[in-house]
Amino acid sequence: MAKRIGKQSVKFDKSISIKSTAATVGPKEGEGPLGKYFDVVLEDILAGEKSWEKAESKIVSNNMKLAVEKSKIGMDKIDYILAGDLLNQGSGSNYGVRDFNIPFFGLYGACSTFGESMCLGGILIESGAAENVLVGASSHFCAAEKQFRFPLDLGTQRPLTTTWTVTGDGAAVLSNEDNSPYITAITTGKMVDLGITDANNMGAAMAPAAAQAICSNFKDFDITPDYYDLIITGDLGKVGMELTTKLLKEEGYDISKNFTDCGVEIFDPVSQDTHAGGSGCACSATVFSSYFYEKVKRGELKRILFVPTGALMSSTSVQQGESIPGIAHAAVIENKRGNN
Amino acid sequence: MAKRIGKQSVKFDKSISIKSTAATVGPKEGEGPLGKYFDVVLEDILAGEKSWEKAESKIVSNNMKLAVEKSKIGMDKIDYILAGDLLNQGSGSNYGVRDFNIPFFGLYGACSTFGESMCLGGILIESGAAENVLVGASSHFCAAEKQFRFPLDLGTQRPLTTTWTVTGDGAAVLSNEDNSPYITAITTGKMVDLGITDANNMGAAMAPAAAQAICSNFKDFDITPDYYDLIITGDLGKVGMELTTKLLKEEGYDISKNFTDCGVEIFDPVSQDTHAGGSGCACSATVFSSYFYEKVKRGELKRILFVPTGALMSSTSVQQGESIPGIAHAAVIENKRGNN
Repeated sequence: MAKRIGKQSVKFDKSISIKSTAATVGPKEGEGPLGKYFDVVLEDILAGEKSWEKAESKIVSNNMKLAVEKSKIGMDKIDYILAGDLLNQGSGSNYGVRDFNIPFFGLYGACSTFGESMCLGGILIESGAAENVLVGASSHFCAAEKQFRFPLDLGTQRPLTTTWTVTGDGAAVLSNEDNSPYITAITTGKMVDLGITDANNMGAAMAPAAAQAICSNFKDFDITPDYYDLIITGDLGKVGMELTTKLLKEEGYDISKNFTDCGVEIFDPVSQDTHAGGSGCACSATVFSSYFYEKVKRGELKRILFVPTGALMSSTSVQQGESIPGIAHAAVIENKRGNN
Repeated sequence: MAKRIGKQSVKFDKSISIKSTAATVGPKEGEGPLGKYFDVVLEDILAGEKSWEKAESKIVSNNMKLAVEKSKIGMDKIDYILAGDLLNQGSGSNYGVRDFNIPFFGLYGACSTFGESMCLGGILIESGAAENVLVGASSHFCAAEKQFRFPLDLGTQRPLTTTWTVTGDGAAVLSNEDNSPYITAITTGKMVDLGITDANNMGAAMAPAAAQAICSNFKDFDITPDYYDLIITGDLGKVGMELTTKLLKEEGYDISKNFTDCGVEIFDPVSQDTHAGGSGCACSATVFSSYFYEKVKRGELKRILFVPTGALMSSTSVQQGESIPGIAHAAVIENKRGNN
């Protein structure tokens, strides 16, 4: 039985292993500082398809299959798929796994979706309903720009607070087998909305939710930031990271020494002109599923707090003057179980 | 511990009570055959707001609060909210529960979302992670027409296979308290896509998925259709019901005697000009949360199979010539536990 801790956290009793991961990215991500860690770097951002949306679904399909291959568990042993993306009605995921013939739960947590899928995937195993769960999240730069901002052909100038949506898919096979690393606990996010209305400043919109989830994790488990080797948010970017650090300092927690963000890690802002960093569901999903997963598996990082972050607006809500609620879902991922 | 049964089903060990429900609908639904069963019938389809999208979020907010009030559990005892809707990026739900200050999982299963929320809500309680979970789903006729088909002002003629998106929200408080009725088992849907490309014929797109989920439920539990007092799909409408009956007959199951559909129940097609029936996430959510919930609670129906159905397309996927995958999530809902 899972143990409810505090108001937002749960500690797993069972072994929730991250048996395997896979990360596929586009050409730009491949040229970035983490390029060599990804399983697949596409040469063609259309992945041989006729539209960006179809390209995203193809990336999802191939990458999720790759995660299952790497797990050596076999597709017929996967009990559930949990996935989501940024496209309207989650069509990146829906069309991506349409032919998998496996019970499917579609999720929407914007760029926090990979965290949401890990939380619910862990819960499915803990409950006894599943032995193996395939989770994932995807995004595509061109499809996201077209849908949320402006058609690329306009060549609109991007403000410096803007992030760059990552093209790719990150996926993981969660299993009750006893294989390092493990998801040992989760802190599920609440929506936080401090009134940001600028859709070009997602970092500022998500930072309060990231700080809230991290702070609740510390309080629920009665720990301090140094409990973790590293705290890794999803796609706050440079602007959002600074704000999150400041908000947590006001709560009495100094995370400045062991804090990074997948959006800051994935691109070189100077040579790649990505401004505040990477974003999109695929940002945290691909960076975790390659670079950080391997580091925890090898024991270079013994315990991390992984906190994918999302901004829950739509084009319509922004046009109607609504502010942007943020959300962040945290997972405690450890090289060994029973550390605490 | 939940017990996995067959390939798609799970039997709950714990008591998963549907402690309370609430259903709010628009004026047209109030004039239909089930009008007197809904908790709230709005006089104004804008619910006093300036846009249909804002109206949907207000309906979500008020109706989910009403479900919690009716449960007498108290909002501070709700551990999670699971909700979703048809609007891009789930903004009906996101803005609806933004201020609730409760851990939130956003879902997308198109019109099957209420079934998805029941499945995952039950799993959260079964795992020990939650004692009380608030689940729900919503839709709004005007917002859905604008987003998926044509602006209402065009006055486009609707084909006879078309369904009418229900305006409203259905919500339930699931609890580990021992109160009738109970969710005793679930059968989680797989996507099924037989190549339908007509976005005005959702019934045909969803029927194969409904038949697949119902058939799996029968096979997983080794039962026949008469095991249930009633099998209730979400929003297949007249066209989809006929097709589902036919598909199940081919599998050797005759459900013609105890089968209905929330989309067929909610409107009078002749006097209300709704063609094939009601649809939208709110269709199954509101009809279950009022009419059928009370019938099971009172014991007039002892055991039902409730099967919300969804069509997982987007406007973009339809424009790009993609066919429409269907999905259906089934929940076994009983007046007493331990019947089998």
